[in-house]
Amino acid sequence: MHPRLNPTAGDVFYYPGRFDKCWIYCNFNHIKPRTGMHTFKELQEMVDQHIHSQQLVREPFELYEPIEYALSTGGKRLRPVLLLMAANLYKDDLQNAVMPAIGIEVFHNFTLLHDDIMDQAEIRRNQPTVHKKWNANVAILSGDAMFIKAYEYLLHYQGHNAQQVLKVFNDTALKVCEGQQYDMNYETVHEVTESDYLKMIGLKTAALIAGSLQIGALIGGAGEQESRRLYDFGWNLGVAFQLQDDYLDTFGNPEIFGKNIGGDILADKKTFLFVKAMERAEGDQKEELKSLVGAKTPDPQEKIEAVKKIFRDLGVGDLTHIQAEQYYNKALLKMDQVHKSPERKAHLLDVADQMMRREK
Amino acid sequence: MHPRLNPTAGDVFYYPGRFDKCWIYCNFNHIKPRTGMHTFKELQEMVDQHIHSQQLVREPFELYEPIEYALSTGGKRLRPVLLLMAANLYKDDLQNAVMPAIGIEVFHNFTLLHDDIMDQAEIRRNQPTVHKKWNANVAILSGDAMFIKAYEYLLHYQGHNAQQVLKVFNDTALKVCEGQQYDMNYETVHEVTESDYLKMIGLKTAALIAGSLQIGALIGGAGEQESRRLYDFGWNLGVAFQLQDDYLDTFGNPEIFGKNIGGDILADKKTFLFVKAMERAEGDQKEELKSLVGAKTPDPQEKIEAVKKIFRDLGVGDLTHIQAEQYYNKALLKMDQVHKSPERKAHLLDVADQMMRREK
Repeated sequence: MHPRLNPTAGDVFYYPGRFDKCWIYCNFNHIKPRTGMHTFKELQEMVDQHIHSQQLVREPFELYEPIEYALSTGGKRLRPVLLLMAANLYKDDLQNAVMPAIGIEVFHNFTLLHDDIMDQAEIRRNQPTVHKKWNANVAILSGDAMFIKAYEYLLHYQGHNAQQVLKVFNDTALKVCEGQQYDMNYETVHEVTESDYLKMIGLKTAALIAGSLQIGALIGGAGEQESRRLYDFGWNLGVAFQLQDDYLDTFGNPEIFGKNIGGDILADKKTFLFVKAMERAEGDQKEELKSLVGAKTPDPQEKIEAVKKIFRDLGVGDLTHIQAEQYYNKALLKMDQVHKSPERKAHLLDVADQMMRREK
Repeated sequence: MHPRLNPTAGDVFYYPGRFDKCWIYCNFNHIKPRTGMHTFKELQEMVDQHIHSQQLVREPFELYEPIEYALSTGGKRLRPVLLLMAANLYKDDLQNAVMPAIGIEVFHNFTLLHDDIMDQAEIRRNQPTVHKKWNANVAILSGDAMFIKAYEYLLHYQGHNAQQVLKVFNDTALKVCEGQQYDMNYETVHEVTESDYLKMIGLKTAALIAGSLQIGALIGGAGEQESRRLYDFGWNLGVAFQLQDDYLDTFGNPEIFGKNIGGDILADKKTFLFVKAMERAEGDQKEELKSLVGAKTPDPQEKIEAVKKIFRDLGVGDLTHIQAEQYYNKALLKMDQVHKSPERKAHLLDVADQMMRREK
C-alpha cells in the first residue's frame, strides 16, 4: 500500500524507508474520538486510583506488605489500560472491566517479582526488589499470594462469558511462564535463532499485552472471533514493543531512556540485536563477539562500546527497527479488521503509535 | 452424648476417656453404602489413572518435566478423593468432578514444591525435591506453571455454579499461603500460643481439605449453605488430622510411620506438642526446653530423646490426642447436619475414621 494524501484512521500504510517515517501516516491524533471514550491518561489515573484504594495489607503482614510495595512502585500500567481501552471499543461504561484490569496489573507485577528472584535483579523501578528488601522466601510466597489475588480480581467479572475470560487469562499466564523459561534457557546457549528469539518474546512479553486486549474486548461484549483480532493486534504490537525495547537498551538516548544504556549487553542478554549480529558476523568479528559474551571486564563501558561497535558495523540496529516496523504494521492490519469505527479506535491506535515512538 | 448400644451411622458420641475408644462408635463399616457410591480406593485409582493419562510434558521441557515429576511421586491423593466423595454424596456420576479433583491435587503438589524451596527440604516421598533435582529457579517457575495448570483443571468444570467453585478454590489457595507464612513466622518465635498454632494449621492444612470437600459438594449440586457444612466438616477434620500428624511425628511407631520419628523436633517445629509443653513447663524444665530449640547437637537422637522426655513428663502427647478427638467430634457433628442419608455418608465417614486411626 502507498501513503495517500488524506489518510483515514485505521488505514495501514507501509512507507519503504526509515522506520520513523512510517509514523506520520499512523498517527491518528487528528481524528476526534467520540464522547464516552477515555484517553490513556484518564484510564491510567483510573487504574492507579483503584490500586491505591485497595486494602491489600492485612495479617500476616509479611505476606501482604511486599504485595503492596510491589504494586506501589508505579510502572506505566500499560496492560490494564490496554484492557480498558479494548473494552471501551465496545462500550462506554467500564465499571465491569476495572477489577479485571487491576488483576492483569497484579499478575504482571507478580511475574516481575518472581523473575527478579530468578534473575537476581536488585533494582526494579529505582527501588530494591522484593527479594532484596525482604528475602527470597518472602518473595516466593508473596508472589504466590499475589498471583492468587490476580485471579481474585479477575473473578469479580461475572458476565455471561466470565469463564471464557478466565480461560484467556489462564492460557496467557502459562505462555508468560513458558516465555520466561525459554529466556532462562537461552542464557546458557550461544546460538539463538531469530525464530527462537521471536517465539520467546512472543510468549514472555507479547502474550500478556495480547491477552489483556482480548479480555478487554470480551468484557466489552465482543464475540470470540472479534476478540481474537484484538489478541492478534496485541501480539504483534507486543513483539514490536519488545524489539524496540531491545533497540533502546543499546542505542537509546541515555538522557531520556531512564535506565543505563547497555544493560542488556552487560547481562549478556540474547536480544534481537545480538541474535542478528551472531547470524551476520563472520570470521574474526564473530569470534570477537563470542568472546565478549560472558567476559568479565574491569571496565563495563569498554565491553558496551566494543559490542555496540560490532552491532553498528553489522547494521543490526536498523534491522531491529525494520523488524519492529513490520510487526507494528501487522498489528495495524489486524486493527483494520476490527469491526468498529475509526472514531472508536482512535485512542487505542494513538497509544500503539506512542508505544512505538517512545524513547524510554 | 452417651454411647448407645445400637449406634446409627451419623450419630455422634463422645466417649470420655482414651482417644482411640471413641472410634468404636464412629466406625461405620457395618453400614452398607448404596450402589453408585465409590470407595476411597476406587476413587484413588480413578485420580491416579487420570493424572497418569495427562500429557503434561511439552516444550519447554525444563518447565513441564518437574511438574510431571512432582505429580508422579505419588502421595495419598487424599484431597482429590475427598472432593470426589463430597460430590458423590449428591450424585452418582462423577464425570464433572474429576478434572477439578485433579486440579486440587496439582495445587497441593504446587504448594509442596514451593514450600520445599522455602524449607530447604531435600527429600519428598523418598525422592529428591524439585529444587534439589533441578535448581531453585526451575522449582519457582515450574511451581508457578503448576499453579496455573491447577486453575486450568478447575476451569474444566462448566456447571451453573462454576464461578462459585472458582471463588472457593481461590479463597482456599490464599488461606494456604497465609498458613505457610505464619508457619515461617513461627520459626523465629519462641512463644507460640495454642490459638496461634491452631490458626496456622487451620490455614495451612485444614483449609485445603475443607475447600476440596466444599468444591466437591458444589459440583455435586449442593447449595451454598449445605456446601458450607462440608467445608466445616473438612476444616475440623483437617485440624484433627494435623494434630495427629504432630503426635505421630514424635510418638509414632517407627516401623509403621514411614518417616523418621523426631523430624519435627530436629527441625525445631512449633508443633502442638511443643506449644503445649512451653505452656505447661516451668522453671528449669522450661529453660531446658528453650535451650534445646535450635541446639546443634552432634547426636540428633540425643536431642530427640531429651525433648520427648519433657513431652512425656508434661503429658502433651495425651493433650494432643484429646484435642484431635475434640476436632474430630466437631467434624462429625457437622456431618450430622448434612442433609443426606447415612448410606450416602458411609464412605466419607469411613475415610474420616481411617484418617484418624492411621499410624502413618
